[in-house]
Amino acid sequence: MDIEKECTLLGTLFQAIVTDLKASSPVWDDFVNKGIKLHNLLKATTMAMSAFMESIQKIADFTTNTKGSTKDIGIALTRICVRQKQMDNKLKSFTNALLDSLVIPIQERLEEWKKVSNQLEKDHAKEYKRAMHDIKKRNTDTVRLQKKVRKGSKPDLHQQLSSAMHDVNDRFTSLEETEKSALRNLLVEERTRICLFANSLSPVLDLEVEMVNEVSNLRELTEDVTRL
Amino acid sequence: MDIEKECTLLGTLFQAIVTDLKASSPVWDDFVNKGIKLHNLLKATTMAMSAFMESIQKIADFTTNTKGSTKDIGIALTRICVRQKQMDNKLKSFTNALLDSLVIPIQERLEEWKKVSNQLEKDHAKEYKRAMHDIKKRNTDTVRLQKKVRKGSKPDLHQQLSSAMHDVNDRFTSLEETEKSALRNLLVEERTRICLFANSLSPVLDLEVEMVNEVSNLRELTEDVTRL
Repeated sequence: MDIEKECTLLGTLFQAIVTDLKASSPVWDDFVNKGIKLHNLLKATTMAMSAFMESIQKIADFTTNTKGSTKDIGIALTRICVRQKQMDNKLKSFTNALLDSLVIPIQERLEEWKKVSNQLEKDHAKEYKRAMHDIKKRNTDTVRLQKKVRKGSKPDLHQQLSSAMHDVNDRFTSLEETEKSALRNLLVEERTRICLFANSLSPVLDLEVEMVNEVSNLRELTEDVTRL
Repeated sequence: MDIEKECTLLGTLFQAIVTDLKASSPVWDDFVNKGIKLHNLLKATTMAMSAFMESIQKIADFTTNTKGSTKDIGIALTRICVRQKQMDNKLKSFTNALLDSLVIPIQERLEEWKKVSNQLEKDHAKEYKRAMHDIKKRNTDTVRLQKKVRKGSKPDLHQQLSSAMHDVNDRFTSLEETEKSALRNLLVEERTRICLFANSLSPVLDLEVEMVNEVSNLRELTEDVTRL
């Protein structure tokens, strides 16, 4: 019976995907933990970078202000410090976006995702088992009817058999539809999750790219310094 | 006496610059401390960044491998991870260069710089004081001779006075030369220090700029993700 195979395949596929979905939970947890750790370190690094640039600014200041002959280098260093501070601001934005735009939106979903995965699996298993049990029982009845029909063919038994076979087929068709719909919902759930992730990742990557412009400006200043 | 003023000015200028040079010591110390702190945090951040990217790679992996319909997003995410890993390598180079090319070369000089500044100040003060004391003593003798000459003008006293005045002038000229030379050495010392700093800073800034290329490549990949 082809439609039975189809239903079994759909059921197995659903189970495989929902198992994958459930198995992704620790991966998301890991991502959130690593993201929070990275955010904290980036925050500390940004502050250390500011302090470091301030110490270079102090060097630039005395280099500019001493009565000696180092004013030109002092001015070039100050220019680098100013640019670098703008770079620090971009780094701060990136650090904040990493947490606020990427890690937290995912973290807020984790519990819900776990619940939904479990519920989807549970609902499907229950519904599938119930429907299959029902169909198999009716199928057995049909087989019994077929035997009876083969022994002595009462016309009303023929009609009863035809109606029973029709009923089994209808139920398989209905199960197939249910399975397809469940599978569709599951795939939408899966893709929605990963799309949320991809969409949250984008603005963070954008900010990383934005830092580029600041660094590009550094190049000419570096050339100024080496020319001295 | 103009040359006396000149010598005093040169001596005062030397002292002002050597005082600046000595005063820069805590600024350099601060720079080294902040640099080491920044290096340690950057190192920890680089590792946290690698761990974070690995966690995203795991998300990319299950997104690619699940039987669901998210393969396209998984592949785009993997591409981002690969690029980001190259970015991590640049960050590692930057972190190492910060310490090895900038902070350590300065740190290695700090003690020597302190010693040299103190020695320059001490040598100059001693030499200047000795020369000035000597000249002033001879000057007093000259003034005494002038008085004697004014009272009764013996011809040999005239010659003695002329020779004494000449001697004082010669000594001032010699002191002026010594002061100019000391000042020149001091300025060279000062500029050499700041040039070492500027030259050490350049390769670090270069590496910062190099990171740009990696980030630039990220932009198109980000666009890939948002298009999905």
